[in-house]
Amino acid sequence: MEDQPFSFRLEKQLGSARAGVFTTPHGDILTPVFAPVGTQATVKAVSPAQLAETGANLVLANTYHLYLRPGPDLVAEHGGLHTFMQWPGPMLTDSGGFQVFSLSDTRKVDDEGVTFKSHIDGSMHRLTPELSITVQEKLGADIIMAFDECAVPDDLTYNRKSMARTHAWIERCMHVKQRPDQALFGIVQGGVFPELRRESASFIASLGLPGNAIGGLSVGETKAQMHAILEVVDPILPADKPRYLMGVGSPEDLINGILRGVDIFDCVLPTRLARHQAAFTSGGRVNLMNSANARLLQPIQEDCQCYTCRNFTRAYLRHLIIAREMLASTLISIHNIQFLITLMNNARQAILNGRFSDFSAAFLAEYKPSSRKEQA
Amino acid sequence: MEDQPFSFRLEKQLGSARAGVFTTPHGDILTPVFAPVGTQATVKAVSPAQLAETGANLVLANTYHLYLRPGPDLVAEHGGLHTFMQWPGPMLTDSGGFQVFSLSDTRKVDDEGVTFKSHIDGSMHRLTPELSITVQEKLGADIIMAFDECAVPDDLTYNRKSMARTHAWIERCMHVKQRPDQALFGIVQGGVFPELRRESASFIASLGLPGNAIGGLSVGETKAQMHAILEVVDPILPADKPRYLMGVGSPEDLINGILRGVDIFDCVLPTRLARHQAAFTSGGRVNLMNSANARLLQPIQEDCQCYTCRNFTRAYLRHLIIAREMLASTLISIHNIQFLITLMNNARQAILNGRFSDFSAAFLAEYKPSSRKEQA
Repeated sequence: MEDQPFSFRLEKQLGSARAGVFTTPHGDILTPVFAPVGTQATVKAVSPAQLAETGANLVLANTYHLYLRPGPDLVAEHGGLHTFMQWPGPMLTDSGGFQVFSLSDTRKVDDEGVTFKSHIDGSMHRLTPELSITVQEKLGADIIMAFDECAVPDDLTYNRKSMARTHAWIERCMHVKQRPDQALFGIVQGGVFPELRRESASFIASLGLPGNAIGGLSVGETKAQMHAILEVVDPILPADKPRYLMGVGSPEDLINGILRGVDIFDCVLPTRLARHQAAFTSGGRVNLMNSANARLLQPIQEDCQCYTCRNFTRAYLRHLIIAREMLASTLISIHNIQFLITLMNNARQAILNGRFSDFSAAFLAEYKPSSRKEQA
Repeated sequence: MEDQPFSFRLEKQLGSARAGVFTTPHGDILTPVFAPVGTQATVKAVSPAQLAETGANLVLANTYHLYLRPGPDLVAEHGGLHTFMQWPGPMLTDSGGFQVFSLSDTRKVDDEGVTFKSHIDGSMHRLTPELSITVQEKLGADIIMAFDECAVPDDLTYNRKSMARTHAWIERCMHVKQRPDQALFGIVQGGVFPELRRESASFIASLGLPGNAIGGLSVGETKAQMHAILEVVDPILPADKPRYLMGVGSPEDLINGILRGVDIFDCVLPTRLARHQAAFTSGGRVNLMNSANARLLQPIQEDCQCYTCRNFTRAYLRHLIIAREMLASTLISIHNIQFLITLMNNARQAILNGRFSDFSAAFLAEYKPSSRKEQA
């Protein structure tokens, strides 16, 4: 297993916050970075050209979905995901593990793998570490993930067993992996338990992989628990490899992750929120359906440079929403993605300039996280 | 009423086929031209930037829909449709007449106007020639249409009465129209009856309007009847003004219309077909859902220069359709619009080069019109 095409260069570190460059066969990833998610080989409602215009660089696709539909062979016949979905930049696929546990009826987890029922047609499938790597090699992303079990976070006994299984699976993934142009990342598990996370991080760190991920967060634990786990893991994971916090993507979580040593994030949040008419602003989320926007001739955010904010008023976007026009989802998705990309770019610049402490404090003071209630 | 910003220059005529330039306040329209339809101030599933990339120039919006939602005042507060929906090129609004009769429960047509029930919320409204012009002046398109009655095409007595009413309404529209930066087009009616069409065309021609339209076609009559009516109207309408065949947009109808002296067309067909997975090719429509496309690594059409065909395979498009991804509608809409725009550009070039007879014959020989059945 060789990973020569990959290298990580740390440009600056301020406390735990890091600015780096991860080199992949499809280009450099400037970290910290937020990766939009193209679950089914498309970032929902956005064309690759529109996505590129947001400044997006790394894009994620889901192995579980693509394994079921259209199947990895069709993607391989295209020459891989980059060609299939026409994303020329770096890509990452997850292992399918998380979705097997979250989307399908899981029939049986054993030490060999997982038997599950497709959420699409109810057909039965079995995914193993070996098959996950084979599928990910056919999909051809630059970064591929070890097959892991994402356990319910607060059961100590189960998490201990599950973590051991995940560790064994990672070694099987490393064993079968063949393509030198893909970097395999390991995944730290261990639920909300600091001692398990410490053990898992030490094990993962010992494998010498080109990058490491923190899984099993943003799945029901509190923000304080998430931060505590990141703080446990941060000093153990190798500083000279990128760290990827899986499935995390709210603006405040990104900043809090960077403060605790994370380099890479991904989440469906910006596109999912857009389809529910919610848009990020520096003050927090706004729901564009709110009647306060009905006659507002301002963009979502005045100083935003995205295509949507450069062109369209909130009143127009609200009209599109009420008229059930697809363009609403497209335009709000573009804004939300670019909002997170810009936030990451600004965070990176603040790290490089030695001002990330002020930057993060100012952002977190202004941005009001909203769980369910939205303000206009 | 002044229309100085508008002028029509006929560059070449071959038989009845014409190549011209219609100058508007938002730019020149090279005719023959196909106008995509942005019913609710958006061409469905396509952003203005994507639309511009197809080569689209003239874009239509529907007064009936925008009158009901979001209302003309909000559009006027934006400075008109061009700003509201961010279309910088020429625009056209219809009068609302056709939709009042086709989409709503029409309660009462009298010589003053039409009382109808909104298809959105069942509320009652009344549209008159005067109100249609007022609304269209608030919407601010370059070309606005006279308020007309679109009658069932094959009832002679009713069509005679309806035509007289339409003629009276056009004069009322001309009387109230105020903005000099909008060109009012009259509309020839008269169903499938040559004598009525002749009378209507003569009347409309006598009004000296900057452009003239042929309404009430593509509403159930046969192709032969449509062609016959166009041939009746062609020599009567002034040659030095553009002629607009309303609501017609299949490839074969466009070519047959040009052959009979039409300059401007509009239709929802390219975008509506796209949302039903059907794409134009030079051989006829294909439905991308067909399993024959499942592993095809070719684009919709090999020599097409649209964004979709330059980037994506039929297999990918079919995957998006099956996975119910919005991007499918966007990409197929882009292709279908550009297909018609390119067809019009090529037709124009053939007219200018004196080869339109060969061009149209070759196109009509290759293109297989499909009513309901689609071939892969």
